[in-house]
Amino acid sequence: MSKVFVLGHKNPDTDSICSALSYAYLKKETGMEAEAIRLGEMNNETIFALKEFGFEAPRLVKRVSEEASQVILVDHNERQQSADDIDEVQVIEVIDHHRIANFETTDPLFFRAEPVGCTTTILLKLYKENGVEIPANIAGLMLSAIISDSLLFKSPTCTEQDIRAARELAEIAGVDVDAYGLAMLKAGADLSNKTLED
Amino acid sequence: MSKVFVLGHKNPDTDSICSALSYAYLKKETGMEAEAIRLGEMNNETIFALKEFGFEAPRLVKRVSEEASQVILVDHNERQQSADDIDEVQVIEVIDHHRIANFETTDPLFFRAEPVGCTTTILLKLYKENGVEIPANIAGLMLSAIISDSLLFKSPTCTEQDIRAARELAEIAGVDVDAYGLAMLKAGADLSNKTLED
Ligand SMILES: [Mn+2]
Ligand SMILES: [Mn+2]
Ligand SMILES: [Mn+2]
Ligand SMILES: [Mn+2]
Repeated sequence: MSKVFVLGHKNPDTDSICSALSYAYLKKETGMEAEAIRLGEMNNETIFALKEFGFEAPRLVKRVSEEASQVILVDHNERQQSADDIDEVQVIEVIDHHRIANFETTDPLFFRAEPVGCTTTILLKLYKENGVEIPANIAGLMLSAIISDSLLFKSPTCTEQDIRAARELAEIAGVDVDAYGLAMLKAGADLSNKTLED
Repeated sequence: MSKVFVLGHKNPDTDSICSALSYAYLKKETGMEAEAIRLGEMNNETIFALKEFGFEAPRLVKRVSEEASQVILVDHNERQQSADDIDEVQVIEVIDHHRIANFETTDPLFFRAEPVGCTTTILLKLYKENGVEIPANIAGLMLSAIISDSLLFKSPTCTEQDIRAARELAEIAGVDVDAYGLAMLKAGADLSNKTLED
């Protein structure tokens, strides 16, 4: 099997980056040659989260089809939010928490969407279903994504499942959710590089 | 919460009927007012399976929007394979094993598609994830669907997961897979009422 890219949406937010890294780790643990990539520049909130848990930025790849024939989408499914050349590769999996639209395949695939507040809340289930232990630093990334998407549990899209997942991940990561969460959101707000679409 | 219809595709096959009945049961057990319905006449194979495990045919409903505002799709996702008035109701869940196409929502939903040979192979996982015990007669329906979609494990779409699920369901249902499977397929073939699209 050749390399499979795991990617979030354009103008990546913390969920897109952290989900790509966290799901690529799970797929590698289960035997797939997976690599997390990103489609654009990271915001300061995401940079803060990656630094906190000791991760390098995923590689920036503009044309996925030049290096991979199969991809996994996280935190999005709509074609226009994905790689420009998404139609030139096979989407073999999607893990998402958004509405479904502008998405079509010719073959069956693994598509897991749930109406929760963050992609990593679903990834936590997939780690459990696959019996893969979550390293502390991956748990920190997954927690960061939930804090970001839920604005520290204040967003109307935040569900009980997200809150429970965050608590569980914070325990594994060994961080104080409120203290870390505020610092992370502040890092993003401070330099106000968020765009309206976020 | 008002009633939620659980429905398979038009020209229903054994998977569509048995998945609708089996998932409606699971949803009822978890507190939803769910009712399995069908969009068309059942074939003789399906009639044989329902009789074997003591089930009545799901009610035939042509226009779902006259009685429900929310529906769950099983064994299909494409609009043209669903109820004629599918655009007039909200699809809140999809459980399927086909390619994804002609499907779009305005809100996030629970969408679970996996590249396996039968919808009930996925339903078995959902029973486990929800901690709901499978009654013997429901297990019989779920087994019938796998036997039908996989032509008793001979179809190229049949996966290891389907075989393992069938074995587990046969144990719960207390039936001999080969003997029952051949009788069921024979019931369908005998009266040759299958159309080419099946
Ligand atoms: Mn996002
Ligand atoms: Mn997200
Ligand atoms: Mn079918
Ligand atoms: Mn089927």
